[in-house]
Amino acid sequence: MIPFVEKLRRATGENRPGLCVGLDPDPARLPDGFPRDLAGMARFLHQVVEVSAPYAAAYKVNTAFYEAFGADGWRVMEEIAAALPPQAVRLADAKRGDIGNTAQRYAEAFLGRLPFDALTLSPYLGGDSLQPYLRDPAKGAFVLALTTNPGSQDLQIFSDGKEKLYQRVLRLIPQWAPHGNLGAVAGATHPQELAALRAEFPAVPLLIPGVGAQGGDLQAIVDLPYGPGRGPVLVNLSRALLYPGNGLPFPACVAQACREYHRALAGA
Amino acid sequence: MIPFVEKLRRATGENRPGLCVGLDPDPARLPDGFPRDLAGMARFLHQVVEVSAPYAAAYKVNTAFYEAFGADGWRVMEEIAAALPPQAVRLADAKRGDIGNTAQRYAEAFLGRLPFDALTLSPYLGGDSLQPYLRDPAKGAFVLALTTNPGSQDLQIFSDGKEKLYQRVLRLIPQWAPHGNLGAVAGATHPQELAALRAEFPAVPLLIPGVGAQGGDLQAIVDLPYGPGRGPVLVNLSRALLYPGNGLPFPACVAQACREYHRALAGA
Repeated sequence: MIPFVEKLRRATGENRPGLCVGLDPDPARLPDGFPRDLAGMARFLHQVVEVSAPYAAAYKVNTAFYEAFGADGWRVMEEIAAALPPQAVRLADAKRGDIGNTAQRYAEAFLGRLPFDALTLSPYLGGDSLQPYLRDPAKGAFVLALTTNPGSQDLQIFSDGKEKLYQRVLRLIPQWAPHGNLGAVAGATHPQELAALRAEFPAVPLLIPGVGAQGGDLQAIVDLPYGPGRGPVLVNLSRALLYPGNGLPFPACVAQACREYHRALAGA
Repeated sequence: MIPFVEKLRRATGENRPGLCVGLDPDPARLPDGFPRDLAGMARFLHQVVEVSAPYAAAYKVNTAFYEAFGADGWRVMEEIAAALPPQAVRLADAKRGDIGNTAQRYAEAFLGRLPFDALTLSPYLGGDSLQPYLRDPAKGAFVLALTTNPGSQDLQIFSDGKEKLYQRVLRLIPQWAPHGNLGAVAGATHPQELAALRAEFPAVPLLIPGVGAQGGDLQAIVDLPYGPGRGPVLVNLSRALLYPGNGLPFPACVAQACREYHRALAGA
C-alpha cells in the first residue's frame, strides 16, 4: 500500500509542481470530426488521456460535466476513470460535503466503486463530514479553501480578527487528517495569498486551479517553495489543455499544450 | 409558471411546517421479501412514494445513496424522481457547490434533465456559485446554513464578533436570490438557534433535517411562527419514515409513520 501523499509526491516529483489534466468536456467544443454527443465526448476524452499521459501527474474529472448527461454520463465517467493511468493521481472533482452515513456512501461511490485516489470536498460541514474519505491512508481528499471565483470573497475571507475562514480551514487540516492525506484547493487567481498560505502551512498538499482560462498566475506557482517537508502541489488546467487553440490538429494540439505547461511548471 | 416559493407554500400550507420524505435507501435495511440490491431498492422506493403521497409536502432524494451504485444507481434516481407526485416539492439533496460553467452543468443535471424543483447547495463558494440554480423563479435551492452534525461547530459558528458564519449565510440570502427562491438548511438539533434565526430572517424558507434518527426537537419546529410573510418550512425525515419500527408490516408501517408525523407537524 502506497500512502496517498507518497503517491502524490512520486507523481509530481519532489522539487516542482505537477500538471493535473482537468477532464471537463464540453460537447460544443469537440474537435471537428467528433459527434457533439456523449459518444463523441467519450472518444475525445480517451484520446486526451492517451496523449497527455507522459506529462500528467494527475487527472481531475469534474462530476458536473458527466452528471449533466444523467446515468449515461455517469457511465462515461466510469469508463474514463478506469482508463486513467494508475501511476497518475486520479481525482474526482466532486466537491461533495455531507454527514455521517451519507458521506460514507459518497466515499464508497468515488473511492470504492470508482477507482479514484482522492476527491475534492467542501469544508462547510466540518471535520466529521470529511472522515469517511480519510480513514484509508492510501486514499485522500482536497478540501476547498480559497477558490478562484468572485464569490470567494463572500464567506472565505470572513475573519474573526485573527484569521480568515480559509486560513482556519488550512489550520484545521492536520487535526482533521492525522494520516496527512488531506490537501487544500487554493486558486492561482490569488497569488499573494497562495504564497502566504504556502509559507504558513508548508506541509499541506495543494491543488491549484485557475491557471489558463481563469487567468491565474503560473509563475507565482513555480516560485512557491518545494522539496522535503513541503506538501506536493498539483496545478490543474482544463480548458487550456482540452481546447488550446494553438493551431495544431487534435490530438497533437493537446499533446503540445501539455508539453508546454509541463515545461513551464518545471521552471524551464 | 408557479414561482418556486409559491409551490412550496401551496405544498406545506400557510400555517404549519410540511413533511418532507427523505428517500435515502439502505439496501441492508429493506423489508423482508425485497432483494437486497438495486432492484429491491427501486421497488421499495416506489412503494414508499405511493403510500406517503397523501402526507408529503416534499420529497428529498439524497444523491449519495444512488451514486454509491454508480451509473445504475443514477438510473434508479432518475426513475424515482420521475415517479414523485408533481404537486409535491421535489428536492435533490445534492449539496453541490462549484463555479461558473461547472455550476451551470449541475443546474442542467438536476433542474433540467432530472425533474427536481430545487436542490441543496453548499454556500462555501459564495453568491456567484449559486446563481445558475436561481435564474428561473420556478426553480430554487436550499443553501446549507447550520447543520446537525458535531462538525457544524468547526466553521459554521466562526464569528467576526458581530455574526456567525451561518448567520452571514442567512443574511446574504435575499441579495443572492432576488426571486426569493433560495432557502436555508438549518438543523432541528439546534432548537434555540433555529428559533432565533426564524425571528431574524422570517421570510427565508427553511429545510429542517435532524428530527427522528438524529434526535432533533420536533416540538421546537411546531412552535416556530408561521403565516403570511413567513417563509415556508419543510421538516425532513428519512430513516424514521423508511424504517419506522412501529411493528406494522411494510408498507403500512411507512404510511402510519407519515400519518403520525404529518399530524404532529400540524401541532395536533
